[in-house]
Amino acid sequence: MENTLEKSAMSISIPKVHETEQLSKMLGSNAKPSREYEEQREIQENNGQMSLAITECIEKTQVKLAEIITHYVGTLNEKKLHFLGYPTNQDFDYDALAPLLNFHLNNAGDPFSGSNFGLNSSNFECCVLEWFANLWEINKGEYWGYVTTGGTEGNLHGILMGREKFPNGILYTSQDSHYSIFKIAQMYRMQCVTVGTLVSGEIDCVDLKALLVGHRDKPAIINLNIGTTMKGAVDDIDLVVQTLENSGFSHDQFYIHCDGALFGMMLPFLKQAPGITFKKPIESITISGHKFLGCPIPCGVLMTRIEHINSLSRDVEVIASKDVTITGSRSGHAPIFLWYALNKKGLIGMENEIQKCMMNARYLRDQLRDAGIGTMLNEFSCTVVFERPLDDSFSRKWNLAWKKNIAHVVVMQHVTIELLNNFINEFIQKRRIWFQNELRNPPCLADDIGAENCTCILHY
Amino acid sequence: MENTLEKSAMSISIPKVHETEQLSKMLGSNAKPSREYEEQREIQENNGQMSLAITECIEKTQVKLAEIITHYVGTLNEKKLHFLGYPTNQDFDYDALAPLLNFHLNNAGDPFSGSNFGLNSSNFECCVLEWFANLWEINKGEYWGYVTTGGTEGNLHGILMGREKFPNGILYTSQDSHYSIFKIAQMYRMQCVTVGTLVSGEIDCVDLKALLVGHRDKPAIINLNIGTTMKGAVDDIDLVVQTLENSGFSHDQFYIHCDGALFGMMLPFLKQAPGITFKKPIESITISGHKFLGCPIPCGVLMTRIEHINSLSRDVEVIASKDVTITGSRSGHAPIFLWYALNKKGLIGMENEIQKCMMNARYLRDQLRDAGIGTMLNEFSCTVVFERPLDDSFSRKWNLAWKKNIAHVVVMQHVTIELLNNFINEFIQKRRIWFQNELRNPPCLADDIGAENCTCILHY
Repeated sequence: MENTLEKSAMSISIPKVHETEQLSKMLGSNAKPSREYEEQREIQENNGQMSLAITECIEKTQVKLAEIITHYVGTLNEKKLHFLGYPTNQDFDYDALAPLLNFHLNNAGDPFSGSNFGLNSSNFECCVLEWFANLWEINKGEYWGYVTTGGTEGNLHGILMGREKFPNGILYTSQDSHYSIFKIAQMYRMQCVTVGTLVSGEIDCVDLKALLVGHRDKPAIINLNIGTTMKGAVDDIDLVVQTLENSGFSHDQFYIHCDGALFGMMLPFLKQAPGITFKKPIESITISGHKFLGCPIPCGVLMTRIEHINSLSRDVEVIASKDVTITGSRSGHAPIFLWYALNKKGLIGMENEIQKCMMNARYLRDQLRDAGIGTMLNEFSCTVVFERPLDDSFSRKWNLAWKKNIAHVVVMQHVTIELLNNFINEFIQKRRIWFQNELRNPPCLADDIGAENCTCILHY
Repeated sequence: MENTLEKSAMSISIPKVHETEQLSKMLGSNAKPSREYEEQREIQENNGQMSLAITECIEKTQVKLAEIITHYVGTLNEKKLHFLGYPTNQDFDYDALAPLLNFHLNNAGDPFSGSNFGLNSSNFECCVLEWFANLWEINKGEYWGYVTTGGTEGNLHGILMGREKFPNGILYTSQDSHYSIFKIAQMYRMQCVTVGTLVSGEIDCVDLKALLVGHRDKPAIINLNIGTTMKGAVDDIDLVVQTLENSGFSHDQFYIHCDGALFGMMLPFLKQAPGITFKKPIESITISGHKFLGCPIPCGVLMTRIEHINSLSRDVEVIASKDVTITGSRSGHAPIFLWYALNKKGLIGMENEIQKCMMNARYLRDQLRDAGIGTMLNEFSCTVVFERPLDDSFSRKWNLAWKKNIAHVVVMQHVTIELLNNFINEFIQKRRIWFQNELRNPPCLADDIGAENCTCILHY
């Protein structure tokens, strides 16, 4: 029956696509050159890049598409050899999950109440959340959370919970916070107070206190950075809580959200590091799944004390679940990637990876310092901050992130000593040219990374 | 050198993971049962489901993980045989893209200005956007857009642009809108006015006019549904614009966003369907990429007139790009999936798929009607709405979505006549039992789907 119907569908009088005004344009621009010409044009490399324009009205052969993808994979492999500036672990292997590419998986709704969208991975998601609940020391029944599309969604959720608890609360966040925090304040129409930072990048609690006292009439919603974007600095939760108390804020007058992007899941593995735990008076934490664990697609974990979610939660009949997340449809693949990575690495494996990253970061710091380059590495951090290379094309080649006078390398699992050596050697060599063989002096970076780390003529 | 350092890292005095308080608990709970016991417990199926708990402190063997995934893929294939109620095309083949699973790709920032995150697919993304710009008839240089994490993010962006243009504007949306719209109004602290709908699900412009006139003092931000979630109804853009004009709103006093979830990209292929085009006074459109095109992960496309984005745009040095999207880090895979699907299908292929979905939807409607089941199918829609099955477990088995008295099937590409026949036969058979062999009468659905579609004793 199917076949008959399909065939008849082809001959019924549904308008041909080229008869519609909108689509005739798409076909028109494309009807002139021959198919051979188009194919040749697309295969042809312009500046080493294949043309990707979707110009044909008839379907491309799979062979041709595969050719473009193969070329693209080649360029990615090239780029991976110089990928230093972003906190994303590129060392993973999810080949075993390739069969899942055949399904659209969707965890719409509340992971704990499931949904009618049968092709979901909520069971995997709940296990991932349980793992993080153990990591951050919060009991079953006391937390709620979900796998997000990344750190920003986690921040969107955590800060929203804060605002719903304190509708007239003020959002405090340090000037070194991720750019998403300031955007979120705008989106949510929240008063946002920017707090100064120490040279390390950590929130300055002296400044925080002055600001808190100046706005004593309104509750405080505090975003803390467990790893700032640029310097990998960790805001001191205990000191912030103490500052709140000293400024006259009782525990029912503030809400602390932790943006744990990279370090939120690494610090618990480092003995002397400050604890990231719900035993402290924090209300929500988020981390990025694609950062330390590594994941093809951006994702993250948001965890909050369960009492906060009622403000957003709505029963949604159409999915037979609750709408309590920021995005509605959510990737079912992301939780499986995380589940797989957590299982495959194991706790010992993770600890080893963290050790290696920290060791290699210290190696990079030492090598740069030895070469007379101003460099800073915060404790419990794998983000090595240094003098910004004078030539941006060098920074782009090595995928460095920069801000004003400084640049950084984030030493993730794929950043080997060999890779670092290649980078260091080229940096030193190029720098000699930029500085005209020492006719020019290194810049003063005392304000950026501290006098003790600066190699300018005054401080070195 | 690498090896030496790695080895020495293993023996330096970084604390053992089990020495930390937080992690000792994770290990502790797990130290008691033997590994054999744990393995057995996990392999063992409980109610047909493997335990997925992440309980081991040492890494699981890949073989074992692969076993769990294989089992899971089996259950997904089972579920796919009954997947009828959600508008997600499950008929796709992205095997050629499997090599991309080895990279974390991230399109952080503005796709048009690129970013320093070298492992991106912005070129693919721009081509996808160009394709949609052609579809929706807006010239290069006049649009801006990006590939989102799904329809909700597109709505978040479109409505934010509206609010930033009209800070005191009122959001109007019909009661049949997707649940995300009402959540967004709460998030953005916008006054939201809910407009009634016709029986078809389409926005009721008589009600809209009354509401507009009642709030004449404030600009109007209108969300239109190009395909409502439950009934697949298409709001009439032209009639809404006319209603705005008739209510005394000049064109600089309103902002129209179109939630085109499923139909926003299908309608342009249907000759008699109302045009979805930027030639009309609309400001932004969003569609879901995983709906019609099909994609493993949720994604979407947001397109807006370029003049709106300045309100959100911020230069972000750390990624050497502009922050102008809702999420910051964005999937680099999603645009490639969309690019691949658009290329592989081609315009003719897409038209054929749409024809087939429409045909099969009509087939389902006719078969249900012939069986005396109240059924509605809107014009230009593949969402077949019918009497809600009395047994929710039947609905769950077939992944139907329901709301109050009605349920629906969305006839996507994977929904074959054979699949429909299986569903119809079981529905009719079960319904006979629920209705005790016609001792009980069908419910009246005149208010839900119209008297002409109702099969109750009064209307049939």
